[in-house]
Amino acid sequence: MEILLVTGNPHKLLEIRSILSEFGINVRVARVRKLEVQSEDIAEISRTAALHAARELGTTVVVEDAGLFIEALNGFPGPYSAYVFRTIGNEGIIRLMRGVKNRKAKFVSAVAYAHPDGRVNVFRGIAKGIISEAPRGRGGFGFDPIFIPIEGDGRTYAEMTFEEKNKISHRGKAFRVLAKWLTEQGGSG
Amino acid sequence: MEILLVTGNPHKLLEIRSILSEFGINVRVARVRKLEVQSEDIAEISRTAALHAARELGTTVVVEDAGLFIEALNGFPGPYSAYVFRTIGNEGIIRLMRGVKNRKAKFVSAVAYAHPDGRVNVFRGIAKGIISEAPRGRGGFGFDPIFIPIEGDGRTYAEMTFEEKNKISHRGKAFRVLAKWLTEQGGSG
Repeated sequence: MEILLVTGNPHKLLEIRSILSEFGINVRVARVRKLEVQSEDIAEISRTAALHAARELGTTVVVEDAGLFIEALNGFPGPYSAYVFRTIGNEGIIRLMRGVKNRKAKFVSAVAYAHPDGRVNVFRGIAKGIISEAPRGRGGFGFDPIFIPIEGDGRTYAEMTFEEKNKISHRGKAFRVLAKWLTEQGGSG
Repeated sequence: MEILLVTGNPHKLLEIRSILSEFGINVRVARVRKLEVQSEDIAEISRTAALHAARELGTTVVVEDAGLFIEALNGFPGPYSAYVFRTIGNEGIIRLMRGVKNRKAKFVSAVAYAHPDGRVNVFRGIAKGIISEAPRGRGGFGFDPIFIPIEGDGRTYAEMTFEEKNKISHRGKAFRVLAKWLTEQGGSG
C-alpha cells in the first residue's frame, strides 16, 4: 500500500515513513503547494489542506498538521508552532515559562486523509506532558528539546531515540490510527 | 462613496470608519466568513481573503490585515499578531523582550481591494517604532500599549487619542492611500 503525503518538512517525513513502514505502507511526497488556513483547530487546518491538495491532484492525499499547546499560555503556540519555532524558538518558550508553575502541555497531531470528491477523514493523536526548565537533547526537531511526555521516563522528546519518540508521540499515535483504518479498508479508502 | 469591509474586529472598524469619513467614504460591514491563510506576508493574507470574499458576495470588498513585526524576534508576532495577543498578550511580548537592547519594531497594514472577477489591489501602510519596557495607556487595542511610534512624542499608541493614533498609524496610512486611489478612480475601481 502507498499514501501520497503533502509536506515540506523532512523531519516529519522521516518519522511518518518509519511509523507507517511497520504496516507495510509506503510514503510518497506530493508535489503541490500546501494551502494552510489560519485556525485555532489543527484538524480544520489539516482537513482544508488535504481537501485542497486532493482536488488539485485528482487523487487521495494525506496531510498532517501538528502543534504544541501550553496550558499556562492559553494554548500558545498551538496551530502556529512552526512559525513560532522559526521566530522565537525554544529559548522564547522557556522565557515565557520562566517562574510559571503550571507547566502542562500537549502535542497534538491531526492527520487528514482526503479524496478529490470531497470525502475526508481526520485522525488525531495526543501526547500529554510538561515543558522542561531548559532545552535538553539533540534529537527530533522543533520544540522536541523542551517537551517531556508523561508516557516517558523524564527525558524530553529530543533525548529519546527516533524509535522511542515515535512509539509514544502524538504523530505516532495519529498515523497508527490512520494505518489501521487503511488496512481495514483494504486501501480503498 | 461606500466600501464593503470584511472584518470581525470592532476596534478596526471604528478606526477605519473615522479615517475614511474624512474622504466622504462610508463603511459597511460584509456578512461573510473571512478566509485567512497562513503566510508570513500579510499582503498575501489580505489579498487571498479579499478575493475569496469578493467571489462569495459577487461584489467588490475591502479586507485589512495587520501585524506587529519585532526585529529582535525575527518578525514575531507578525501575521499571527491577533492570535499571539489572545494567548500571551502584551505581558508575553514584554517578557520576550526583557533585557533585549534592539527594541525596533514596525506595525504593518495591508489593505486589499478585490473584485469578483479576480482583480485586486493591495495598499500598505507602515509605522516604525520601538517596543516599550512596560505596557502604557488604555486607548487603542491589541499591542497598542507596548508600541511607541517614531513619528510620535514618546507615547505609546494606547496613550494617544483616537485621532492622534489614526493620523500616524500604519492603518491610517494604508487606508488614506486606498481612499485617494478610490477618489481618483471615481469609485469605479
